[in-house]
Amino acid sequence: MAIEKGVEIAPAQGKLGVLLVGLGAVSTTFIAGVEAVKRGLAEPIGSLTQMGTIRLGKRTENRVPKIKDFVPLAELDDLVFGAWDIFPDSAYEAALQAGVLEKELLVQLKPQLQKIKPMRAVFDQRYVKRLNGTHIKEGKTKMDLAEQLIEEIAEFKRRNRCARMVMIWAASTEVFMKPHPVHRSLQSFEKALKENHKAIAPSMIYAYAALRSGVPFANGAPNLTVDIPALIELANQNGVPICGKDFKTGQTLMKTIIAPGLKSRLLGLHGWYSTNILGNRDGEVLDDPDSFKTKEESKLSVLEYILQPEIYPQLYKDFSHLVRINYYPPRGDNKEGWDNIDIFGWLGYPMQIKINFLCRDSILAAPLVLDLALFLDLAQRAGMKGIQEWLSFYFKSPMTAPELYPEHDLFIQLMKLKNTLRYLRGEELITHLGLEYYD
Amino acid sequence: MAIEKGVEIAPAQGKLGVLLVGLGAVSTTFIAGVEAVKRGLAEPIGSLTQMGTIRLGKRTENRVPKIKDFVPLAELDDLVFGAWDIFPDSAYEAALQAGVLEKELLVQLKPQLQKIKPMRAVFDQRYVKRLNGTHIKEGKTKMDLAEQLIEEIAEFKRRNRCARMVMIWAASTEVFMKPHPVHRSLQSFEKALKENHKAIAPSMIYAYAALRSGVPFANGAPNLTVDIPALIELANQNGVPICGKDFKTGQTLMKTIIAPGLKSRLLGLHGWYSTNILGNRDGEVLDDPDSFKTKEESKLSVLEYILQPEIYPQLYKDFSHLVRINYYPPRGDNKEGWDNIDIFGWLGYPMQIKINFLCRDSILAAPLVLDLALFLDLAQRAGMKGIQEWLSFYFKSPMTAPELYPEHDLFIQLMKLKNTLRYLRGEELITHLGLEYYD
Amino acid sequence: MAIEKGVEIAPAQGKLGVLLVGLGAVSTTFIAGVEAVKRGLAEPIGSLTQMGTIRLGKRTENRVPKIKDFVPLAELDDLVFGAWDIFPDSAYEAALQAGVLEKELLVQLKPQLQKIKPMRAVFDQRYVKRLNGTHIKEGKTKMDLAEQLIEEIAEFKRRNRCARMVMIWAASTEVFMKPHPVHRSLQSFEKALKENHKAIAPSMIYAYAALRSGVPFANGAPNLTVDIPALIELANQNGVPICGKDFKTGQTLMKTIIAPGLKSRLLGLHGWYSTNILGNRDGEVLDDPDSFKTKEESKLSVLEYILQPEIYPQLYKDFSHLVRINYYPPRGDNKEGWDNIDIFGWLGYPMQIKINFLCRDSILAAPLVLDLALFLDLAQRAGMKGIQEWLSFYFKSPMTAPELYPEHDLFIQLMKLKNTLRYLRGEELITHLGLEYYD
Amino acid sequence: MAIEKGVEIAPAQGKLGVLLVGLGAVSTTFIAGVEAVKRGLAEPIGSLTQMGTIRLGKRTENRVPKIKDFVPLAELDDLVFGAWDIFPDSAYEAALQAGVLEKELLVQLKPQLQKIKPMRAVFDQRYVKRLNGTHIKEGKTKMDLAEQLIEEIAEFKRRNRCARMVMIWAASTEVFMKPHPVHRSLQSFEKALKENHKAIAPSMIYAYAALRSGVPFANGAPNLTVDIPALIELANQNGVPICGKDFKTGQTLMKTIIAPGLKSRLLGLHGWYSTNILGNRDGEVLDDPDSFKTKEESKLSVLEYILQPEIYPQLYKDFSHLVRINYYPPRGDNKEGWDNIDIFGWLGYPMQIKINFLCRDSILAAPLVLDLALFLDLAQRAGMKGIQEWLSFYFKSPMTAPELYPEHDLFIQLMKLKNTLRYLRGEELITHLGLEYYD
Repeated sequence: MAIEKGVEIAPAQGKLGVLLVGLGAVSTTFIAGVEAVKRGLAEPIGSLTQMGTIRLGKRTENRVPKIKDFVPLAELDDLVFGAWDIFPDSAYEAALQAGVLEKELLVQLKPQLQKIKPMRAVFDQRYVKRLNGTHIKEGKTKMDLAEQLIEEIAEFKRRNRCARMVMIWAASTEVFMKPHPVHRSLQSFEKALKENHKAIAPSMIYAYAALRSGVPFANGAPNLTVDIPALIELANQNGVPICGKDFKTGQTLMKTIIAPGLKSRLLGLHGWYSTNILGNRDGEVLDDPDSFKTKEESKLSVLEYILQPEIYPQLYKDFSHLVRINYYPPRGDNKEGWDNIDIFGWLGYPMQIKINFLCRDSILAAPLVLDLALFLDLAQRAGMKGIQEWLSFYFKSPMTAPELYPEHDLFIQLMKLKNTLRYLRGEELITHLGLEYYD
Repeated sequence: MAIEKGVEIAPAQGKLGVLLVGLGAVSTTFIAGVEAVKRGLAEPIGSLTQMGTIRLGKRTENRVPKIKDFVPLAELDDLVFGAWDIFPDSAYEAALQAGVLEKELLVQLKPQLQKIKPMRAVFDQRYVKRLNGTHIKEGKTKMDLAEQLIEEIAEFKRRNRCARMVMIWAASTEVFMKPHPVHRSLQSFEKALKENHKAIAPSMIYAYAALRSGVPFANGAPNLTVDIPALIELANQNGVPICGKDFKTGQTLMKTIIAPGLKSRLLGLHGWYSTNILGNRDGEVLDDPDSFKTKEESKLSVLEYILQPEIYPQLYKDFSHLVRINYYPPRGDNKEGWDNIDIFGWLGYPMQIKINFLCRDSILAAPLVLDLALFLDLAQRAGMKGIQEWLSFYFKSPMTAPELYPEHDLFIQLMKLKNTLRYLRGEELITHLGLEYYD
Repeated sequence: MAIEKGVEIAPAQGKLGVLLVGLGAVSTTFIAGVEAVKRGLAEPIGSLTQMGTIRLGKRTENRVPKIKDFVPLAELDDLVFGAWDIFPDSAYEAALQAGVLEKELLVQLKPQLQKIKPMRAVFDQRYVKRLNGTHIKEGKTKMDLAEQLIEEIAEFKRRNRCARMVMIWAASTEVFMKPHPVHRSLQSFEKALKENHKAIAPSMIYAYAALRSGVPFANGAPNLTVDIPALIELANQNGVPICGKDFKTGQTLMKTIIAPGLKSRLLGLHGWYSTNILGNRDGEVLDDPDSFKTKEESKLSVLEYILQPEIYPQLYKDFSHLVRINYYPPRGDNKEGWDNIDIFGWLGYPMQIKINFLCRDSILAAPLVLDLALFLDLAQRAGMKGIQEWLSFYFKSPMTAPELYPEHDLFIQLMKLKNTLRYLRGEELITHLGLEYYD
Repeated sequence: MAIEKGVEIAPAQGKLGVLLVGLGAVSTTFIAGVEAVKRGLAEPIGSLTQMGTIRLGKRTENRVPKIKDFVPLAELDDLVFGAWDIFPDSAYEAALQAGVLEKELLVQLKPQLQKIKPMRAVFDQRYVKRLNGTHIKEGKTKMDLAEQLIEEIAEFKRRNRCARMVMIWAASTEVFMKPHPVHRSLQSFEKALKENHKAIAPSMIYAYAALRSGVPFANGAPNLTVDIPALIELANQNGVPICGKDFKTGQTLMKTIIAPGLKSRLLGLHGWYSTNILGNRDGEVLDDPDSFKTKEESKLSVLEYILQPEIYPQLYKDFSHLVRINYYPPRGDNKEGWDNIDIFGWLGYPMQIKINFLCRDSILAAPLVLDLALFLDLAQRAGMKGIQEWLSFYFKSPMTAPELYPEHDLFIQLMKLKNTLRYLRGEELITHLGLEYYD
């Protein structure tokens, strides 16, 4: 299974444009963080591309390079940031408003942040009911809006002399939508764009514009967006990597840590009750039942896939799984989860686990944005196109090939990611057998 | 890396004698559970050998047999139980006393349980200060006591017509002991046995007797016991598999689930405070500082090994790690843990995780006893001898080859275990690469 | 303020009939408990009338009689139980079904419990949407149903030779209703009964029947029921004591303990988030938004009244208060609450309190039913009529005179209750001054 | 019981000197807070004297003045601060070091804080083993040290032109000491001072100096200090009010809120396990077993007194009560408690309450210092001398007259405090009877 030579990867030369849809808490925490790290003011904690290592060969070889020394990634100094938002505030004002990072830090980065002014957003309140923006594009048709975006992407690249670009959705959760016939092929999708079809959400227009421009696209929200046949077709056709959906942070992150642990020990599950309190714009948007439904679907599926009730019916069939999100202003951008997990062991005896996670949403999401930007760019330079399943590690609802089920187990996701990197460089894949030490 | 033919394994014919040191809460919960499962009264939840499955080949092949259908394990109907204890109570009385299982269930198993009467124990209060037993062997020297055990093992085998046997330490934690020169070789160890050397703890006498009798030995407590060069030498010499130390249940189990999760996301750690309340005999023993020290060492090392501070100094150097155990009678055999975990993310921002685990110690340990009995027997029939690192999955302080560090990550441990089974049967080892689906 | 002679109270001679509306978890736990206590099988923990004491005179006098030795209460041996329910199950079957008490205990009480068979209920699914009963009274008008109840009350009294009776609502929460003009006077209420007016809920029909029969009435649910001018008028007219609403158990009980504590120290409140998981019939009923609204109103008002934001605007104005109830079957009759309380102290610095209460709803409610039965009977014998504010101690939404606000502080409620008893017996009221010890 | 005229109280004219023993986290948070409040930068949250109100007369009268408008207290503008400490840092430097208040606030108060420089402390490491100070008084005998303090007190008064003074112990917990014969009379105490007797701890020297100078003294630590017959004798002789011991903050505060709540409902107690993690100097001092013992005694007694096991043996006899304190540096000055409370209700059924309190020690203590300073001064002006039991509200181990038991119930303590104020002003004492509204 060892690969002799690995895969040919184009070098990471020149500037990398990082285009962010939404210049809110996540995006500004990401941008300010990169600027702080570049100046040595802080560490990029939580980022696999910046701090992660990878073990190569046998345990006794002690070969553990940093990931960024192992595969050719863009440097932080080569990143250039752009954004669209429904408010005209610069990244500096938006970061202050978000209340995630301390003012003391932001003040030091004011010149860099103030320069980043968002372009007008493609927005339609029917898709995000609790928001009401003023900094909005106008256009006769959705295709018309897409063409404006494509023009802006090209203009951004030119003006900032970017060698390559990526686009990341870091905006709000849209209302719940089911796949629609117009999503089935690129042809029907483009027809629908021109006819202003309501099955085309704003996030799809951004994804379409990115892929048309040859720009990799990552979807940090649970919206369908790029996870429809039409856009997968376009990604493959244009040789562009895509990935999604929904950044895995906070409670769901914990869930995909704990659930594999319970399953590894064959401990059964009677129920899992998860509640969240949060007080930022995200909480406000999710206070709308339609947006919440999109989120809920994304959060609920995780356990079903990890626990495999069809293989372990005695353990995991018919458990109760409730997920609640509550808009609770005192929490601000801090998000707090409380989970009650009812498990059972030997002879069916019950036990309980309670987890209280006092987390910070944007602090957990920002390094994911960085990693996805750099890995998508790597993938494109390595000739990988379409769905990047190896980036499942970062998502609550990973996109997969149609014949596969998504992998939700955080540990298998990480092994998949790292073995993919090993594969790219022609290193032996790790199986943790190790019997050779005991002959 | 695929193995064409696998390893030759002798069939699991005839009775398997399971000798338990200690007939307390864990042992009686194990025995009563096996009897209940045999009668269809309950399910062996938590047991990998009984309920676990193993994925073979590619994800799309859908080959997921039960582990017990994949490798030849002893059947539950072939198990015969024996035990030593410092009290003369039968397994029925001891189980009632332990208060783990409901009386209603035990009454149905009374005939089977009452038949199991413990042999007199090798015991010395200097090694477990809070206990005071009455059902004790006498002997001039420790070697003399060992010979008595060897005789009893042989007699048990004869009387119960066992084809094979295993021995498992399920007794109390002994006082803290450092490796001593007499442990360095079999020769010095046997000399010390004859001289009643104080560096030979009772648990070592049991392990020595087992290995001399060709009986695999698992150590469920944190005591040194079989983890000394002298006994590893004897195990290798006699072709006997051994493993240990300290069943991984409750709080440490959670720790080896959560810590790999934090590390996978490169989230830093400022501190981890763990406290336990428990009210059974185990709690009473650990109320003695000397026994607690043995346990504490076992519990503390886990994080250091998983988090690798030498590779990630910015994340995992100098965190505070406290482990407390409190004897709190209202809890009975139920054990409750509370963990406070102080982590930090992007730019160093702090977050907190609190975990409250209302668990049941013996319920979590019993299936481990069953799995270890069956896997040690499998190992012996497959010609595997000495330390069984692939069984690390079950232990807080896994025994390893001297040049290796122990693997504490529950998920890597499980992959190691399953890949070892695949290796034994000549199946391809799993790497979770999966790029083949995206060509 | 000392009263020389106290109040004249008729002796507690003869049987006391306790009529329960609803023969579910609360009622059967109450009845089975009384029977168990009478037989010495268990203790009436949680009951002020059975276990409570009262301090009299100065601290140094050491006069602390039991409440039941201080005021003349009915004896447990004199209680006779009757009930209405929408299912025909006897108290024995209903108790098994409820799953609160262990079968082992119930079996010992089977003869007593099996004798208690419910009368057909007055029920209308429009008022409790999630229930669907089969054991229902029929009648042309609501007045007709009331007359049937009045007849049954008289018949029960006669058959069981009761000297006195009380009625307690221990049935489900009805849908939310606002006071309606027909509730304003007894005259309009009786007219509405005859006209089948939809503003007359079934619980009101029971209360009307009780008061018409001279039977004191306590309302254990948050429904309006007896808390309307028409029925208060009837209670005063007939000299019958009444009280309500909504048994104070579980989370709200804790709230009325904690909130006075915070206020006593002038600690401010940013927010209080309360969530509940429960799996019994009560949880199912409250899964209906209309019933939940009735409950929510009852639960939300507590903090406003205790914290007095109008007096302490800097501390208690504009806090966020969320109450959630989730139907979660794994919990069964056990109810679990999780509260997150965001407080602030000196100079506004924030702190947090989290409370996880693993409680048992019916276990907390049953002693309240007993106390209310005995105290209402005492009140009637002491000539007290109408609203019994001194019993606020037992309710989430205490009924009060129209010009007063309800007292929610558990400690003031208890002092009020005990000082009322002292007043009845002519003992000095306690003020906790105690300066006399330091002269 | 109403007092016609109240008590004559001297007006609060002129400056009030507040002398603090210890210029650490508590003292600097108190001083900085008062300065911030004076400038309108923050609110004195948590202070009864500043924000509290008192209800007078009947509920319908609506007379609820602020306490500071009801009794004549010193104004914040009239406070002058002095301190002793074992380090020479000014209040500004010490506050920065303590890490309680934000630098942004402290910088605004720098001029005021920097002026407060501590006098050399009376200190002996044998009484606080984990501390090691450099800013220490020297003296041949303990009496000699006392005389130095008396001189400094007089000098402070003169220099700052104070009309009156109070002294408050806000320094570390000393090692555990039992009452000793030399404490029995003022005469033997003074003899011991001269003979350097080891039963005289430094805190006693401060208290002696205060009382000799006619300065009221409050003891914020659990040390014996002023709670010995010799010093009570001196206080009475000189007409000086005293109070103590151990500021009631954090976990014990919660305990005296929850325990009365459980008792009010006659819920039984099997066990109460309390653990604390804290990372400041206080945590370090309490890491020494001798100092911890002093603290533990103070914390443990609370439940026994509140729950009255002698009156309620079925409910409160033989419960397990464990209190643990852990030095855990990541917490800093924040203190976190976790309590597990095992209760039982109706028929003995068990329930559990878990409380996680993320508190801030100094934030909770600072307003107590302020209130005690002002109330002690009020007491002195009202002619009250010796033990002030009405200030029990502020202490974990309230001092009482020898024939009385201490009152630990927070709610009774508050009622006692407020009724004392009512008594001082000739207002009717409140009994919460309120039957008059229902005639």
